[in-house]
Amino acid sequence: MQKKNFGEWYSNILKVAGIVDVRYPVKGIYVWCPFGFKIRRYTYGILRELLDKSGHEETLFPLLIPEEEFMKEAEHIAGFQDEVYWVTRGGLDELEIPLVLRPTSETAIYPIFKLWIRSHADLPLLTYQIANTFRYETKSTRPLIRAREITSFEEAHTAHESYEDAEMQVKKAVEIYKSFFKRLCIPITISKRPDWDKFPGADHTIAVDTLMPDGRTLQIGTVHHLADNFARTFEIRYEDERGERRYVHQTCYGISERCIAAMISIHGDDRGLILPPEVAPIQLVIIPIIKKEGGEEVLKRCRKIEERLGERYRVKLDLSEERPGAKYYHWELKGVPVRIELGPRDIKKDEVVISRRDEQKKISVKMEELDNRIEEEMNKMGKNLLLKAEAGMRERIFECAKIEEMSNHVRKGIIKASWCGDESCGREMEERSGADILGDILGEEEDGICPICGKETKIKVYLAKTY
Amino acid sequence: MQKKNFGEWYSNILKVAGIVDVRYPVKGIYVWCPFGFKIRRYTYGILRELLDKSGHEETLFPLLIPEEEFMKEAEHIAGFQDEVYWVTRGGLDELEIPLVLRPTSETAIYPIFKLWIRSHADLPLLTYQIANTFRYETKSTRPLIRAREITSFEEAHTAHESYEDAEMQVKKAVEIYKSFFKRLCIPITISKRPDWDKFPGADHTIAVDTLMPDGRTLQIGTVHHLADNFARTFEIRYEDERGERRYVHQTCYGISERCIAAMISIHGDDRGLILPPEVAPIQLVIIPIIKKEGGEEVLKRCRKIEERLGERYRVKLDLSEERPGAKYYHWELKGVPVRIELGPRDIKKDEVVISRRDEQKKISVKMEELDNRIEEEMNKMGKNLLLKAEAGMRERIFECAKIEEMSNHVRKGIIKASWCGDESCGREMEERSGADILGDILGEEEDGICPICGKETKIKVYLAKTY
Repeated sequence: MQKKNFGEWYSNILKVAGIVDVRYPVKGIYVWCPFGFKIRRYTYGILRELLDKSGHEETLFPLLIPEEEFMKEAEHIAGFQDEVYWVTRGGLDELEIPLVLRPTSETAIYPIFKLWIRSHADLPLLTYQIANTFRYETKSTRPLIRAREITSFEEAHTAHESYEDAEMQVKKAVEIYKSFFKRLCIPITISKRPDWDKFPGADHTIAVDTLMPDGRTLQIGTVHHLADNFARTFEIRYEDERGERRYVHQTCYGISERCIAAMISIHGDDRGLILPPEVAPIQLVIIPIIKKEGGEEVLKRCRKIEERLGERYRVKLDLSEERPGAKYYHWELKGVPVRIELGPRDIKKDEVVISRRDEQKKISVKMEELDNRIEEEMNKMGKNLLLKAEAGMRERIFECAKIEEMSNHVRKGIIKASWCGDESCGREMEERSGADILGDILGEEEDGICPICGKETKIKVYLAKTY
Repeated sequence: MQKKNFGEWYSNILKVAGIVDVRYPVKGIYVWCPFGFKIRRYTYGILRELLDKSGHEETLFPLLIPEEEFMKEAEHIAGFQDEVYWVTRGGLDELEIPLVLRPTSETAIYPIFKLWIRSHADLPLLTYQIANTFRYETKSTRPLIRAREITSFEEAHTAHESYEDAEMQVKKAVEIYKSFFKRLCIPITISKRPDWDKFPGADHTIAVDTLMPDGRTLQIGTVHHLADNFARTFEIRYEDERGERRYVHQTCYGISERCIAAMISIHGDDRGLILPPEVAPIQLVIIPIIKKEGGEEVLKRCRKIEERLGERYRVKLDLSEERPGAKYYHWELKGVPVRIELGPRDIKKDEVVISRRDEQKKISVKMEELDNRIEEEMNKMGKNLLLKAEAGMRERIFECAKIEEMSNHVRKGIIKASWCGDESCGREMEERSGADILGDILGEEEDGICPICGKETKIKVYLAKTY
């Protein structure tokens, strides 16, 4: 499994590590296998924790959206109508009103927001759901990255008294997503998408991207300021403190299973998965080294360690018939963060051998120090994964002043360039460089010259080949 | 809110307690509100815990099933084809192969089981998922009870070497479901459905029912022995120890959000919800009683209690501007198990007043005994809810020897009767009594006489009006 052939490596790892099964008989639709689903569970557990903690309440809105609601917001329709699935039949009847499978839930949720919101006392309203959504993708599909059933779409929807309050929420959402990706050890860029690439119906879109091993960026989170665009369409108004009826201002933000695709792709190596300890289904594997004699004592000790560390970690004691080497190979493939080996020689010295998945070094540890050492290594591993990934991304960000330089760096990583902000220059820059503008780099202004028109500008943008 | 008018009470409580919103603009499709969703989260948390602990692995299979797979199992189609939704369009294209929204997932899962199962070493295979399923219901719909989008369908699917192994799993599944409903304090009956009412494609079906306040039973869980019926259709075979290829034997079992409908309906009263402590979104509410003076000290103490008990329970300190009476009313409606009241007079005595939602008595408790007392009352409340509900059901089970007696008891509760086991007698008994046969009472055999044909029999059945 050579990661340098990334496309092949990615397909292969999903299969051999048991993440998703691609053999479902519908194009672009995948099955979550047990091991993959456990990663999903812990990963989305973090997301839920962060959203709950910051005042969001979980809800669940319907999958089926009646044509009339879906067709209310003009830009939104234009953005989605080529890629929605339509339910037209129920049993043997033609439905009177065709139903759309939600591609995203604005048009399912906002008719209800209209009913829930009466006065300023109901605001801000912060909700989210984690649900399946559907896109009839005509481009080539890829598991966890571009699927027709997005099985794990977290979408938050919020309503506020003013544009400014909504803007504050956009900033908070960006911070929540930053924390989330930090815990997955995924380095990110944050930028404001150009107008032609914003969410259909939004005022503007802030996007979270990461850089994949093949030099393309993957959008792994978006935060949309909707202003009062949807509020006007769905008539979502509140009575303010002076008794005046005003439109709410809204935001929405989402993350899909692409977060897991990124985590797998960025950390993995030729031996298989490398999982951050927090989301690893098995955090610790214990391998007994059984020689001709002393086997019983080894097993007894292993069980003791399993029991003790099992109180704090997800531990697997591997008692299968395989040789130790085969076991190492198997659990490395599965990305288990820490391995403990224990044989008769270790017992004599009252030690065990531990090995971290990201470093592969073997370290002898005194039995009495084991608990502290495990904790330390788990922490170190999380930090190390993030640092390594951040360094890996940083060295693939190329500052380019001229179009020719850009073309040379496309597919090697992310390009950083000046841009006058003019759409026609932006479009031309995209076309001539062969890269897409990800957007304005937030908080980064620098004197520069637009490589197309030569005007002075302070705007810096990222560009890249994208998924 | 009078519970004796159950239909009205039920609709009302869902609304005022914030469980689901019924105003979504598609018939039979509902929105989970934040408070209701929290109940769902804790309830399904118990179910996940029980399934994980007994060796099941969570997975997630697709919603969309291609026509060809769906149409493979003849009985299964016959049972479902009148009530499935069809996706026929993607974007602006007619789909070449129409897709069914899963009404249940056998035909989505078993083509993949065929790929996952190779040898006896792969068995037993125990999986489950919690997902949305769809039924194009033409009968009248009711939130959480009969919906077109079943949002919270837990379905387990297992595969085994033999019919007997699958039968063992059926028994285990029944035990798991018993434990689950016990934790929700819901009394149940368990019976083997008559052949004409089994799951389409199953060998036989064991059903879990409960008795609702209006005297009708609600099916809240089913366990199906599929024998090798689906294995033959989907060609799911394994190599046994002697190298022979054999069909697996399968089971599947499911629970939907009806478990929450039952919990709400059985425990609630004229004041509102009564929630078992384990699933209550707020387990403990603290109400400060602020008089003209001493307010600060009261608040300080309340905050201390909130902090201390907050480590073990989900606690709400109600600091709103309402009068205490209005607060009691509100939190009783929401079903909070235990209320703590604290005013200046209590402080003088170093006491607090606690009141349990199911008993309404006020009890003074010394501050130093508070933690133990809360734990004790929470436990007592769980037990009390179950005992009360069990007694309520027991006294509405009527043993009837003759058809005329049965007709008199229909809609008052569950009828227990003898039956010769013959389908024509069963059908006639149903017709003449006006009740449905729920099924053979498992483990209960007794000498009796079939009220239709007069033959001697040992089979006892339950009958009832059903939802």
